[in-house]
Amino acid sequence: MPARMLESKPMVAKFKEEIRNEVEKLKEKGIEPRLATVMAGWDGPSKAYALSKEKTCKSLGINFSLNLFEEDATEEKVTDAIRTLNKDSDVHGIMLELPLPKNINAHRVISTINPKKDVDGITPVNRGLLLMGKLDEALLPVTPLSCITLIESADPDIAGKNLAIIGRGETVGLPLTILLIKKHATVTICHSKTKNLAGIVKNSDIVVAATGQAGLIKVDMLREGQIVVDAGISVLPDGKLVGDVEAGAADVVSHLSPVPGGVGSLTVMLLLKNLFKAIGLQNGSAA
Amino acid sequence: MPARMLESKPMVAKFKEEIRNEVEKLKEKGIEPRLATVMAGWDGPSKAYALSKEKTCKSLGINFSLNLFEEDATEEKVTDAIRTLNKDSDVHGIMLELPLPKNINAHRVISTINPKKDVDGITPVNRGLLLMGKLDEALLPVTPLSCITLIESADPDIAGKNLAIIGRGETVGLPLTILLIKKHATVTICHSKTKNLAGIVKNSDIVVAATGQAGLIKVDMLREGQIVVDAGISVLPDGKLVGDVEAGAADVVSHLSPVPGGVGSLTVMLLLKNLFKAIGLQNGSAA
Repeated sequence: MPARMLESKPMVAKFKEEIRNEVEKLKEKGIEPRLATVMAGWDGPSKAYALSKEKTCKSLGINFSLNLFEEDATEEKVTDAIRTLNKDSDVHGIMLELPLPKNINAHRVISTINPKKDVDGITPVNRGLLLMGKLDEALLPVTPLSCITLIESADPDIAGKNLAIIGRGETVGLPLTILLIKKHATVTICHSKTKNLAGIVKNSDIVVAATGQAGLIKVDMLREGQIVVDAGISVLPDGKLVGDVEAGAADVVSHLSPVPGGVGSLTVMLLLKNLFKAIGLQNGSAA
Repeated sequence: MPARMLESKPMVAKFKEEIRNEVEKLKEKGIEPRLATVMAGWDGPSKAYALSKEKTCKSLGINFSLNLFEEDATEEKVTDAIRTLNKDSDVHGIMLELPLPKNINAHRVISTINPKKDVDGITPVNRGLLLMGKLDEALLPVTPLSCITLIESADPDIAGKNLAIIGRGETVGLPLTILLIKKHATVTICHSKTKNLAGIVKNSDIVVAATGQAGLIKVDMLREGQIVVDAGISVLPDGKLVGDVEAGAADVVSHLSPVPGGVGSLTVMLLLKNLFKAIGLQNGSAA
């Protein structure tokens, strides 16, 4: 029996409705939600992401401002812009597009963002609150949240389930590990040094792949009944987008998130949800 | 063949020598290292820990000051004391003895500590730097560091090893998970909701137990060749201290850390190592 595909499209529609309602409520209270994006350089995928965010924000009644710097901007210029946005009470969320050009120390720039406006959950304080389990007052990174939304759409009760995460990156693997432990899953984190990847994947009820290595998770590592979320994304020479999970997995497992149309498509929605949480934190309420 | 016991005593002797050398070097530069402890209430095990720290510091030439508050002190009084210590350039490390009395919001008090003086690694910023892999500029929690010191004394190369952590607490399990992933182990985190604890433990090369449940890890879950670190500590009705690992494990596994005399005995040494790292960070050098 082919897998049920964990398509994000119907979820996006539901999120949009919730977001529109939330925007309306905020406007009634005199709050005009605003997301500010900071970018240096206008090349590569960041451009497409920023334009797509702008379009989504506008369609949902959220103000959007783009702070664009030249590729050769100094670090000081970028951090000064962030400090200005930190102080501007009309700006509720700050999104720094990564990667930054190589002459800029990304970690120092990230650490400048006001944690209560850090809608991408990338500052040390928000990472710390995540690790400390202070989830109500943390702004959490959106790709792990997207993975969890997809998993829970297939199985709302993951407590006690064996869950393999392949990939230990800062953006997905590590924060996702913490969030899934808090949700009572028994988590095994695999990576390039893992010796028995096939065995661990086969023994898991739920598998999340987040390595960016096209086709790393082979069909024969998988089995019936599994939920598989593919958070990897790679561009093949012919321009096609593919995930970490080999084509054909859909014929084997129970639920599979597609690439594209799975994890990635939910992230903007979760970013806007974070914007509302950020507004709450800035007004002194946790959540 | 009975296990080699991972006794901390010989390691403590070595640490003390290193610490004495470091203190001498600092004094030559005109720096008198000082650790300040903040406590509210003078009951329970915190008292014994504080006194033991004071004794160790004095014996190694490190200044120690105790900031003791009544059990019913207000939160403001405790945070004010921490703010004063934050500003005092003669104080290099601040150690808050936990738990605090119930009328005090521990999280708010913890968040007040200057991250560069946070020798116990408990502030959101240091937890965040840990999760972000910025280990050179983070002050890391000492009990996980103690576990790693013991593991590496038995096997310096844990890359690719299967490692089970039992317990997902904020003090040991979760930060240890992150540190061991960074050291390239394949980590599985188990807890009260885990369904196949015995199987996971049996399949692991290295096992760390950190639940505080006396004897949770049974001898028959273990096998020859394993390294077992016991970070649990419980007091039996007769006053005896025991760990999470059942008595008799030493006859089965290859290496076992004893309770007492294992993980706990190294923590003060690692706290003082953190004090030196803190001095470096306060002077603007990472590590």
